[in-house]
Amino acid sequence: MPFLTAEGQTYSKGLENVVAAISAISAIDGKEGILIYRGIDIEALAKHSNFGESSYLLLFGDLPNKHELEHFCADLFGARELPENVVNCLKSLPPDPHPMDILKLALAHAALYDPDKNRMNRKAKIRKAIRIIAQLPTITAFYHRARQGKEFIMPNPELDHAANFLYMLSGKEPDPEDAKIFDIALVLHLDHGLNASTFSALVTASTLSDMHSAIVSAIGTLKGPLHGGANERVLDMLEEIGRPEKAEKYIMNALKEKRKIMGFGHRVYKTMDPRAKILKEYAIKLSDKYNDRRLIDIALKVEEVMKREVSKKGIYPNVDFYSGIVYKFLGIPKDLYTPVFAIARVVGWTAHVLEYTEANRIFRPRVLYNGPIDREYIPLEQRP
Amino acid sequence: MPFLTAEGQTYSKGLENVVAAISAISAIDGKEGILIYRGIDIEALAKHSNFGESSYLLLFGDLPNKHELEHFCADLFGARELPENVVNCLKSLPPDPHPMDILKLALAHAALYDPDKNRMNRKAKIRKAIRIIAQLPTITAFYHRARQGKEFIMPNPELDHAANFLYMLSGKEPDPEDAKIFDIALVLHLDHGLNASTFSALVTASTLSDMHSAIVSAIGTLKGPLHGGANERVLDMLEEIGRPEKAEKYIMNALKEKRKIMGFGHRVYKTMDPRAKILKEYAIKLSDKYNDRRLIDIALKVEEVMKREVSKKGIYPNVDFYSGIVYKFLGIPKDLYTPVFAIARVVGWTAHVLEYTEANRIFRPRVLYNGPIDREYIPLEQRP
Repeated sequence: MPFLTAEGQTYSKGLENVVAAISAISAIDGKEGILIYRGIDIEALAKHSNFGESSYLLLFGDLPNKHELEHFCADLFGARELPENVVNCLKSLPPDPHPMDILKLALAHAALYDPDKNRMNRKAKIRKAIRIIAQLPTITAFYHRARQGKEFIMPNPELDHAANFLYMLSGKEPDPEDAKIFDIALVLHLDHGLNASTFSALVTASTLSDMHSAIVSAIGTLKGPLHGGANERVLDMLEEIGRPEKAEKYIMNALKEKRKIMGFGHRVYKTMDPRAKILKEYAIKLSDKYNDRRLIDIALKVEEVMKREVSKKGIYPNVDFYSGIVYKFLGIPKDLYTPVFAIARVVGWTAHVLEYTEANRIFRPRVLYNGPIDREYIPLEQRP
Repeated sequence: MPFLTAEGQTYSKGLENVVAAISAISAIDGKEGILIYRGIDIEALAKHSNFGESSYLLLFGDLPNKHELEHFCADLFGARELPENVVNCLKSLPPDPHPMDILKLALAHAALYDPDKNRMNRKAKIRKAIRIIAQLPTITAFYHRARQGKEFIMPNPELDHAANFLYMLSGKEPDPEDAKIFDIALVLHLDHGLNASTFSALVTASTLSDMHSAIVSAIGTLKGPLHGGANERVLDMLEEIGRPEKAEKYIMNALKEKRKIMGFGHRVYKTMDPRAKILKEYAIKLSDKYNDRRLIDIALKVEEVMKREVSKKGIYPNVDFYSGIVYKFLGIPKDLYTPVFAIARVVGWTAHVLEYTEANRIFRPRVLYNGPIDREYIPLEQRP
């Protein structure tokens, strides 16, 4: 909880429970396990909406009508190609780069060729946002092809955002049902309040820096293992457990040793994350469809043991617990889970930047100084 | 001032007066106009210290002894060269790039070749910090040469940090007195609490992302005109005024029209910024040395009028008011003032990242939601 310092300032480590912005984009009811985008329940959006429509909702505040949606999707689908020099740069990768470093680099590079790079008005910011949202899947897919020594697959304007990404990754048009599930997974990850990456985008944008700089900051922030990558580590854990019968012992041991169980617990949700509920459903569906229940059965057993042991402490599965299994069946390699998170969350990042900079105030918090004072400068020759 | 929300959370726009971290690196006494680095007054450091020594002080907490200083400077001076691919990339610049975009891009690029890129321990973080501090001047100078179509000047390990930068910029070894003044200007800009760029480095680093990502965020944040670039606009204003006799009328008009006077006022200092005091002295010195008092005389007149009119409101010259004149005499082009700010402040950025991540907590503030709730999903065909 925040406390007041001697000077009447508030302090709370990591800004926990400190409000850093007022926003009408998304809201979380951590007690009830509800997430809304612009007032609409995420469950309804997962059921009825799609990436294009929900992105429009987050960026502009309302669901689009038919004309607006067509226009928006045409802009989005038409902006997927990367500037030639960015493509060339992606072709000569250094050894073993971190995929998030490539996203950061390629986007910082694309910024130099953005036709609106010297414009700061709202319309220009929106055009940049749409270009960035359109380009991140292309960068990710190109990187994945390049590291395998394979040819890039050019974006296919006939395919929607989710399907096109899976297509650029593998070179094959995805099964429509799989593409729809990926689309839903993206919708579920579009926004989630002021997580660290969104917050870092706002801090950068608050100096009236440009949209690309803000999103580059967010990508660098999402790269950190305390933010992105948890679903990757959930899969590692499930693989380590190996068989459903071993889950009980593994979890009981881990709890006894106070080890963190990946994919459980959240600073805000004190019940099951509504996104986890939906992803669980699709993880089961895909496991049955592809007749491979090995991981899902381990995951279900882990959830059962955790429910029995720690749900009274408010520790429940979070969004990362089932998403890894879903992505695995969709053919997405494990180390691309964080870039995939970015591909979705960039909508929230750009929406928050657009909103915050409309009533902007530079972030300039204080530090509480706990170092020495009145220290004399000692000349070099007199130092010990 | 922060206020409490209904849920017992604190809110203050831009986090004004909210403490975001505890730190022993630098402290500001805004009332007395004092800035200390690790307890030592900036005035003493400007007088007796230099870039290498003061950087060591900020990074490690104490002034180095002779052996430590030699070691540190050897590391710093030896790390100036850029990876070959980064150099090649700098040779083919796109049309009219923003210099801060080039810093961001080249550093994100250099990150891929960093020998410690997969190491996260403190020693590796320090090595990365030193490399980044060493490379930013090289990137800036190479960019400046490239845009003029001139050959890059390779770093000269015989020259210290400040002198080498001026050398790489012009190709000529700088006058030692000028180099010393530039060194002092760098010392004055090394750190300054949680300004927006330093804060954004911490937000990125707080997810345990890497040092390069944190500094790339800081560069993107410093790019914004509310943070960097004020000294550039001070020079524009002095040029616009044109002659000392015109200063009185210009300022009185500007005050009447409530226009912002560049280089005056600060969120923290309510008296003269101690850095401005020192830079003023050198701006006068250089004007006399080069027998060109045009700008300094306008600046002194502006300060006089401002002192008479608004000093009672706590509005005084800040660090940006005299630095532009100093840089101009040192031959630094105006649009490189913000990169020069980065070349100094990167020491503070890296020092804060090192400190914060030792007792890390991810930044995860709250938002106050002021949007709609319980909104129904309306199917596309029924939307207006």
